[in-house]
Amino acid sequence: MAKRNAFYAQSGGVTAVINASAAGVIETARANRARIGRVLAGRNGIIGALTEDLIDTSRESARAIAALKHTPAGAFGSCRYKLKDLDTDRAQYERLIEVFRAHDIGYFFYNGGNDSADTCLKVSQIAQKLGYPLIAVHVPKTVDNDLAVTDNCPGFGSVAKYVATSMREAAFDVASMAKTSTKVFVLEVMGRHAGWITAAVGMAEDAATPIPLVLLFPEIAFDEAKFLDAVDARTKRFGYCCIGVSEGLQNAEGELMAEAGTKDAFGHAQLGGVGPRIAQLVKERLKYKYHWAVADYLQRAARHLASKTDLEQSYAVGKVAVELALKGHNAVMPAILRTSDKPYRWKIVIAPLTAVANKEKMLPRNFITPDGLGITAKARAYLGPLIRGEAPPPYRDGLPRYVRLRNVAVPKRLSTTFDV
Amino acid sequence: MAKRNAFYAQSGGVTAVINASAAGVIETARANRARIGRVLAGRNGIIGALTEDLIDTSRESARAIAALKHTPAGAFGSCRYKLKDLDTDRAQYERLIEVFRAHDIGYFFYNGGNDSADTCLKVSQIAQKLGYPLIAVHVPKTVDNDLAVTDNCPGFGSVAKYVATSMREAAFDVASMAKTSTKVFVLEVMGRHAGWITAAVGMAEDAATPIPLVLLFPEIAFDEAKFLDAVDARTKRFGYCCIGVSEGLQNAEGELMAEAGTKDAFGHAQLGGVGPRIAQLVKERLKYKYHWAVADYLQRAARHLASKTDLEQSYAVGKVAVELALKGHNAVMPAILRTSDKPYRWKIVIAPLTAVANKEKMLPRNFITPDGLGITAKARAYLGPLIRGEAPPPYRDGLPRYVRLRNVAVPKRLSTTFDV
Repeated sequence: MAKRNAFYAQSGGVTAVINASAAGVIETARANRARIGRVLAGRNGIIGALTEDLIDTSRESARAIAALKHTPAGAFGSCRYKLKDLDTDRAQYERLIEVFRAHDIGYFFYNGGNDSADTCLKVSQIAQKLGYPLIAVHVPKTVDNDLAVTDNCPGFGSVAKYVATSMREAAFDVASMAKTSTKVFVLEVMGRHAGWITAAVGMAEDAATPIPLVLLFPEIAFDEAKFLDAVDARTKRFGYCCIGVSEGLQNAEGELMAEAGTKDAFGHAQLGGVGPRIAQLVKERLKYKYHWAVADYLQRAARHLASKTDLEQSYAVGKVAVELALKGHNAVMPAILRTSDKPYRWKIVIAPLTAVANKEKMLPRNFITPDGLGITAKARAYLGPLIRGEAPPPYRDGLPRYVRLRNVAVPKRLSTTFDV
Repeated sequence: MAKRNAFYAQSGGVTAVINASAAGVIETARANRARIGRVLAGRNGIIGALTEDLIDTSRESARAIAALKHTPAGAFGSCRYKLKDLDTDRAQYERLIEVFRAHDIGYFFYNGGNDSADTCLKVSQIAQKLGYPLIAVHVPKTVDNDLAVTDNCPGFGSVAKYVATSMREAAFDVASMAKTSTKVFVLEVMGRHAGWITAAVGMAEDAATPIPLVLLFPEIAFDEAKFLDAVDARTKRFGYCCIGVSEGLQNAEGELMAEAGTKDAFGHAQLGGVGPRIAQLVKERLKYKYHWAVADYLQRAARHLASKTDLEQSYAVGKVAVELALKGHNAVMPAILRTSDKPYRWKIVIAPLTAVANKEKMLPRNFITPDGLGITAKARAYLGPLIRGEAPPPYRDGLPRYVRLRNVAVPKRLSTTFDV
């Protein structure tokens, strides 16, 4: 088979370990120089392909590529840009093939979540329709942990470790202060549609470290009375209470709690998310002093606290994506299969993109306790291995030393431009 | 000299490393069994002394006490409870001496900030007035870094390391997303009166890792136009901008920005702090998509990311406090003296409490750039050593393994009670 170039792009919200997948792709491609020429990366994701703004990763040293394994976020830039179906956005898909043809791209590696799995599938389809030889492989990534087929998603384990650790630490703080000061602490976490990250907050607590916790999942309609009762009971019994709340918490009418309710004097929706809102509710109804935190990007960028399991899997899906491509597997995604809980064992299997694209894996109801406010042993058995192991970055002068790539542009070969 | 017991209490907001000071006190007392009997700790700080709710630390194993060095927050409970002057609160001071007498307390170690330095001084004065032999030593601690005499305060370096690391990580995230999504990121940090923690956010950036940053200090009245210009210029030039804002930011009228301004439809002050407010301002005026985070307790409880320098100093002030007491130094505080910047060298010196109590060390104006929105080389030289070194806790099953003490109560010896 002729030697051809590869295209790699990062898509959607980034994670603490998505660059490890990039390293897996690039290092494995470099190990197969006989068959893969250069790996060209899309600057700011698929937009880089559409606008022929490609990055020549061969200009980066082996050391720089290796440093991606300990560097958070998207080293080539990511984007929120969804290609629609083939009929609506046909020109965009054709443009992709035009750019790929100009740069002799034979391999398309797309590193993202649900939407990008769908895009990856469609790119493979349009290539076939147009008779352009292309192998398209999706590299899974999402902190939301909602991709189908795969047991878990690269990026999730590190967020899970971060929110569990942070809640444990904050709980120690609140417990210290509760006698005369803060009694209720609220941590708002990501995961608008599925409660995987909220569930991970529950791992803060275990047999050796009991913590009075209440979790508010996006899957469980907010029941104010029940919630307040639970917080009050725990605060009375233990002196304090910690609350983990999903940014996607909804009321019984299916409205987002972060948006529902009061507006300010100018008719704007109130500032702040659901975390401060829940804290305020506790204050008004139960009169407990509160503090709240919104971790926001801190949780998904926290490479300093990445899960070693997550890091290894993130690298592995990048590596195997290239190996699958070289074996001729098209329109597939390397998926993680859990083969054993205790000891935790996993391997990579091949998932057809038709089984992944546009599916959403929800948190099973039996991961949530019957009262809707906690996690079950099943959830713990699932989550436990995913947060296990530490993989700290190198530090210099007290701070993590993260790499910034040179990101040298590939000279354009097309005279045409494309507006995105 | 007769062997007498010691009293130790934690006061005010806790830190990631205040328990290291407790370990320093207790381990050093145990090493001097000939002169110090048991270390009795106040349950929930000074309240434990007033109510004769004492914890017998001799019931804790050497391993448990050693584990305090890697456990955040206050292991014996802290409190926000300020004793006023001797005339107003004389009964409370006399009650303290009554409890100390009942338990043969000859040493008083009070681990806190400005207020507790003052309390410690007054306790020493009332003991003298009442003819009760007592050595009172203050053990410095505050994330606010505003204690006088000492070059820096135990607890601050770890918060500084946390906020600088978190901002660096978030900046990598925002840089990845800025092309099509979030362009401005706001991190709200602690430090209501002094901008030490805000300054530490500036350490996220250095020569190897340039980041377009804007800092909003509590010392610099908020100038909306200047701020918006700075954010706009950075976003236009670099594609994104990161903002670190103190919870104590004030407007030109000296009002807290977190409280000033709009109320909601019910006349309540708006939820959320100054972080979301600043983010909203950027959105309204500059139309940039934003994200914001409020780290709150996460920043001061983050033992997983503690500064090794901070940890060592926190232990040292506890240890030296006991050594000073045994040498007969009364009404003093072990203070950190920086003897060299490069290489960083420090030692512990003796500060009289009269020089410490009720003083506040402000961030020098020459630590802030002339435009009021950044930090100077002087600030970097000061802050650099304080965040240096890592001292991770042990992990089990993916999470930091923090100790919980048994906290066995000492049997009461007084028939009197005291209401606080």
